[in-house]
Amino acid sequence: MKVFVKEYTVTTSGREDIVNITRLVEEAVRESGIRNGLVLVYVPHATALLIVNEDEPGLRKDYISKLLQLFPRYGDYLHNRIDDNANAHLASAFVGSARIFPLVDGRIVRGTWQEILLVDMDGPRTRRIVVEVLGE
Amino acid sequence: MKVFVKEYTVTTSGREDIVNITRLVEEAVRESGIRNGLVLVYVPHATALLIVNEDEPGLRKDYISKLLQLFPRYGDYLHNRIDDNANAHLASAFVGSARIFPLVDGRIVRGTWQEILLVDMDGPRTRRIVVEVLGE
Amino acid sequence: MKVFVKEYTVTTSGREDIVNITRLVEEAVRESGIRNGLVLVYVPHATALLIVNEDEPGLRKDYISKLLQLFPRYGDYLHNRIDDNANAHLASAFVGSARIFPLVDGRIVRGTWQEILLVDMDGPRTRRIVVEVLGE
Repeated sequence: MKVFVKEYTVTTSGREDIVNITRLVEEAVRESGIRNGLVLVYVPHATALLIVNEDEPGLRKDYISKLLQLFPRYGDYLHNRIDDNANAHLASAFVGSARIFPLVDGRIVRGTWQEILLVDMDGPRTRRIVVEVLGE
Repeated sequence: MKVFVKEYTVTTSGREDIVNITRLVEEAVRESGIRNGLVLVYVPHATALLIVNEDEPGLRKDYISKLLQLFPRYGDYLHNRIDDNANAHLASAFVGSARIFPLVDGRIVRGTWQEILLVDMDGPRTRRIVVEVLGE
Repeated sequence: MKVFVKEYTVTTSGREDIVNITRLVEEAVRESGIRNGLVLVYVPHATALLIVNEDEPGLRKDYISKLLQLFPRYGDYLHNRIDDNANAHLASAFVGSARIFPLVDGRIVRGTWQEILLVDMDGPRTRRIVVEVLGE
């Protein structure tokens, strides 16, 4: 069994932003030489999150609108007595900062409309992305 | 280390539907012969999702009601200018299309009330389920 | 490849409660002797959930407030005709009962503000936590 880890950084724009990181993840998989196993994508951040879905311009805006509706920026948050980003913490906590995929014959198993998207809810920032490939 | 992958298909009914896939996942685990490691269940679809919870008739309806309350079918979605299923994309993106379990002594670690449920939010369709067992 | 599994129990207080289990997970990783691979944390319960985020006293209350806003205790739930905890099932189903991390050089890859938190939505109870470390 081999374990391959590669870290990337991306820079986001605006308070909320979405960056398609599918190509980076696929690059790490190729570089790993691992053909069968799994791929774990992880963002070590408490105010960003990962989703796996279609990267369509209208839907990109729908993701952000829905997140801001479920987790409005200005709310009665206790955390905002010491900071201003409680809504980003809540979105990250409940949607999650990890996504995992089967890896079969050198290809990430994902559907036609499943792109890997980093969502920043507290940008602009430089965000780290850890890609781990485990298998043989 | 061994990696075993098996794919199933299920057919859903109605726009929203829930299919209990626990038995399929357990069948794949038995067939793999792997005793210790992990089990990854993945749906390669952008308008379906996986949950792990109780399969009780009332609660089945509660899952759908809550998803439709959080992600209403008819909303002001930009994606719906080119399609009609933005709410299903949002539910799939935020709840997620993968679930993972420890595998110990040939058994999936899960609680008494934790069944593995595929939720289709844009049916009726034929949906693929990829089960990966990794371990030894 | 090695697979190491350790189970812990924690006791919660009140109907909703949060317990920081980061130290338990790190203890299991050390005990495993595994240096590179992944760490899977799993709660085999249908009315509790796991989140990975900041453990700040105000934010702890914000997590619970938001969960109770999205999944109110008293709602028109069909499951509550036979029980009284539908909202806890919904929160557990949609947020999830598993969290996974890369393990690199003996350390769990996580951000400065990413603590591992068990959220009980139907306490007080004794809750099981299964930590699996897989790698070499």
